[in-house]
Amino acid sequence: MCRWAAWIGTPIFLEKLISEPEHSLIDQSRNALSCKVAINADGVGVAWYGDRPEPGLYKNVHPAWSDPNLLQLARQVRAPLFLAHVRASTGSATSYNNCHPFTLDKWSFMHNGMVGGFDQLRKRLEHGIDDALYLKRRGATDSEVLFLTAMGFGLAQAPIAAMAKAVQTVERHSRDVGVTPHMRFTGCWSDGETLYAARYASDDFAPSLFYHRSEAGTLVVSEPLEKNRSDWIEVPPNSVLTVSHTSLSVTPFIEGAREDNSPRVDDLIDA
Amino acid sequence: MCRWAAWIGTPIFLEKLISEPEHSLIDQSRNALSCKVAINADGVGVAWYGDRPEPGLYKNVHPAWSDPNLLQLARQVRAPLFLAHVRASTGSATSYNNCHPFTLDKWSFMHNGMVGGFDQLRKRLEHGIDDALYLKRRGATDSEVLFLTAMGFGLAQAPIAAMAKAVQTVERHSRDVGVTPHMRFTGCWSDGETLYAARYASDDFAPSLFYHRSEAGTLVVSEPLEKNRSDWIEVPPNSVLTVSHTSLSVTPFIEGAREDNSPRVDDLIDA
Amino acid sequence: MCRWAAWIGTPIFLEKLISEPEHSLIDQSRNALSCKVAINADGVGVAWYGDRPEPGLYKNVHPAWSDPNLLQLARQVRAPLFLAHVRASTGSATSYNNCHPFTLDKWSFMHNGMVGGFDQLRKRLEHGIDDALYLKRRGATDSEVLFLTAMGFGLAQAPIAAMAKAVQTVERHSRDVGVTPHMRFTGCWSDGETLYAARYASDDFAPSLFYHRSEAGTLVVSEPLEKNRSDWIEVPPNSVLTVSHTSLSVTPFIEGAREDNSPRVDDLIDA
Amino acid sequence: MCRWAAWIGTPIFLEKLISEPEHSLIDQSRNALSCKVAINADGVGVAWYGDRPEPGLYKNVHPAWSDPNLLQLARQVRAPLFLAHVRASTGSATSYNNCHPFTLDKWSFMHNGMVGGFDQLRKRLEHGIDDALYLKRRGATDSEVLFLTAMGFGLAQAPIAAMAKAVQTVERHSRDVGVTPHMRFTGCWSDGETLYAARYASDDFAPSLFYHRSEAGTLVVSEPLEKNRSDWIEVPPNSVLTVSHTSLSVTPFIEGAREDNSPRVDDLIDA
Repeated sequence: MCRWAAWIGTPIFLEKLISEPEHSLIDQSRNALSCKVAINADGVGVAWYGDRPEPGLYKNVHPAWSDPNLLQLARQVRAPLFLAHVRASTGSATSYNNCHPFTLDKWSFMHNGMVGGFDQLRKRLEHGIDDALYLKRRGATDSEVLFLTAMGFGLAQAPIAAMAKAVQTVERHSRDVGVTPHMRFTGCWSDGETLYAARYASDDFAPSLFYHRSEAGTLVVSEPLEKNRSDWIEVPPNSVLTVSHTSLSVTPFIEGAREDNSPRVDDLIDA
Repeated sequence: MCRWAAWIGTPIFLEKLISEPEHSLIDQSRNALSCKVAINADGVGVAWYGDRPEPGLYKNVHPAWSDPNLLQLARQVRAPLFLAHVRASTGSATSYNNCHPFTLDKWSFMHNGMVGGFDQLRKRLEHGIDDALYLKRRGATDSEVLFLTAMGFGLAQAPIAAMAKAVQTVERHSRDVGVTPHMRFTGCWSDGETLYAARYASDDFAPSLFYHRSEAGTLVVSEPLEKNRSDWIEVPPNSVLTVSHTSLSVTPFIEGAREDNSPRVDDLIDA
Repeated sequence: MCRWAAWIGTPIFLEKLISEPEHSLIDQSRNALSCKVAINADGVGVAWYGDRPEPGLYKNVHPAWSDPNLLQLARQVRAPLFLAHVRASTGSATSYNNCHPFTLDKWSFMHNGMVGGFDQLRKRLEHGIDDALYLKRRGATDSEVLFLTAMGFGLAQAPIAAMAKAVQTVERHSRDVGVTPHMRFTGCWSDGETLYAARYASDDFAPSLFYHRSEAGTLVVSEPLEKNRSDWIEVPPNSVLTVSHTSLSVTPFIEGAREDNSPRVDDLIDA
Repeated sequence: MCRWAAWIGTPIFLEKLISEPEHSLIDQSRNALSCKVAINADGVGVAWYGDRPEPGLYKNVHPAWSDPNLLQLARQVRAPLFLAHVRASTGSATSYNNCHPFTLDKWSFMHNGMVGGFDQLRKRLEHGIDDALYLKRRGATDSEVLFLTAMGFGLAQAPIAAMAKAVQTVERHSRDVGVTPHMRFTGCWSDGETLYAARYASDDFAPSLFYHRSEAGTLVVSEPLEKNRSDWIEVPPNSVLTVSHTSLSVTPFIEGAREDNSPRVDDLIDA
């Protein structure tokens, strides 16, 4: 389990999410509240969209709170869209390549969740990665497999459908090997123009997902950045949040999944 | 505040303290119980005495639990005397040179505690380091200053008196600048033959110090390695524990200090 | 291209190979002579056999010459058999998991060489790794694939035949994709009792392999540790050196390969 | 000895100096031409002036060529003024705190050179650091001492005179202990608006210093970024180059020093 935060709006310094708030990502790396694991000190990363189509990427295995390069970057770099992540390993090693976000061309992805029986599935899931993308597999996490699988399913053309298909595909493999929970997924991805964040689980325990909307922009988080949660809107399970600079919507993520619990479109804003 | 453990006895694998016990040093790095700071993830180190007079030294700024080199070393290296430490910074940076233990010739030292007003004192304390030892000052911690000051006071000739004088000297400087607590000190040092551990504070809150004695040897710790503390003997404040391969004693540390609370020789064992 | 050295004999400190000789491994990391790449600063590693059946492993991405932990370990640890390696990447990233040696159970392996067209081959080679070993694939190097492939072919039962089969298998895949040189291989592997080192290429340019034998033991290297090479015996191409504590032999490595150049058994010593 | 490059002009991506040119700083880290040490792999750093008065700072001990965070930062960050440095240690350890540039408030500083007898001088030079700046002493290099000494002499008020006084002061101490060369100095410093670079030695061997002026701005380097040096102007010994966004001058650095060799104002451009 990990913690993450993303921003889309007017350009702000990365530190507005990473180190400044009362319950900033760095604070969460020491004291997560909504998370099964209180310490998220197995790596940190940020992907930001600046003057190029592809994002910049900074990742490190040091605890976020003692990484001077992260603090400097967060203080100096300003971006209209960025994803930031602190990691608590659920098994794979603490290494640069296992840190989130993952990037490919102009796309970035980060994740909090798990795949049941991933160790037994790793070979077949990696074999399922598109040949053309296989060399982009650098680490050993389930999260990177999900991202590359979605890229192979055409994330660039169908950002929500491809991710939903990747999640369903991996969940199906997990059902084959019979390890529960099959899928817990709160992912966030972007092409630098639109930010997507989905919340889903194969059981009743989808990891949390919230957003906060202001005139300046929209903040999307796995856990609110203030201990007072009244200003934060929770995204329901099996839903995907789509935020551009001018619109925001919450729609169903995986069609037909967990119908008893299916979300409705509960929010649609034209800015 | 930090956590540490030391061993003197028959040679054992380092992992017997570092990773194996229920409340091992690595467990303490995530979940310290007696400690003001619950996370000790600002560096880890071990000094062990092997086939040479001077100790081997391994230090790293990664959290102890995710450092594969530490786990390998702990699994492979066996020593009759070693000191191991996990660090929670009280201000100075997370860097190799600020990790404990510190070593010089055949001596090693590690510490849990603090010096009141150290930032204001740093220049004068460093200037007080013996000229011949000045280049050995590599980091920025109060702990390393205490060690080098004690070395300059003749730790090699008078291992207890020199350390007591160093602690008193630094405490006196702290009283000059008027920042409390002036001194909290639970230190451990060795020349590879005898292990010394002292507990002291300028106020009523000396950091904890325990030991556990078995046929195989003596374990000295800042916090017991099992949650059940019944087998552990607490060393009283202002006392120094001296353990060789054949004897153990607890004696007063700083003469004249805190008389109302002065320890008595409470233990003397001839093995 | 990388540089490596291995020892089997009476226990010696690791520094006897790593830092002490005129042309030690650390010196080679700055100034390789027989190597296409003069700087080997993309990681360092050592696997040593101590008090346990499985080897200890230390690896790091820092240049060997400035890694205080490596220097300490090399100064303190003494072993009758060890493998040490400095890496110059031929493409894959500088990361802990890409450093040599690789270990599995009691086996260790390190390598200097390359596989032609490895990027195109990576998916099928990884898919060829035995299911039971797949999770041991941690990095992205051709070297680790060769090792795991050989383990899957029964390295533990047939240490030479399994490695030869792995090299041939990978070479055959390289011929399929048509990138030359298909295989350059100077590998070294051990189970803690016997040391194996093979030299092979699909063309006329097998990377160099030498050994030096004294009463104390046998040193096997990719490049001599002294600039004067007169005391060093070169292993011919397509040969495998087998050294135990009591015997040494050089035999053909891959049967039928490059017959025009096939080595003869040129050395057999009963100690 | 180290290699460095600095830019003042229209905002350019950091990679224009760090990784792109034929003889970029990263290429120089492997293959310096004008330098006594061919490999500069003991750390890398960059200070850039962006949207805040104080510079951003990125430093790392990994070799520049294999540091993915450096390459990302260099590719994404664009600045009108920045300083970049690759380090080859002349003695002090490879650590974050020993990497250049050093920064304080809005000032940054980097250096190629050495102080004769620095080990013997370290205590007195550190004691000479202004009390108010003493806590800013984080590492163990002569370069950081020079910078903090100059800051104490009023670098902010008199950027050239204070640096000249610091160099003279340290040189005088070196003459006291009698180790030659007393001073070799090619330093570069900035407040984010003006770039200063001085070249000086106590003997005839001042480290090299060049600049290249185009419409877009001025590049100042310890060694040209192309192997063809015809477009580069060498700064004479005992001179200081002062470059703002609108002017450039070369003037004497230390008055009265090495008169036989004293530079004249050889360049003055009004843009």
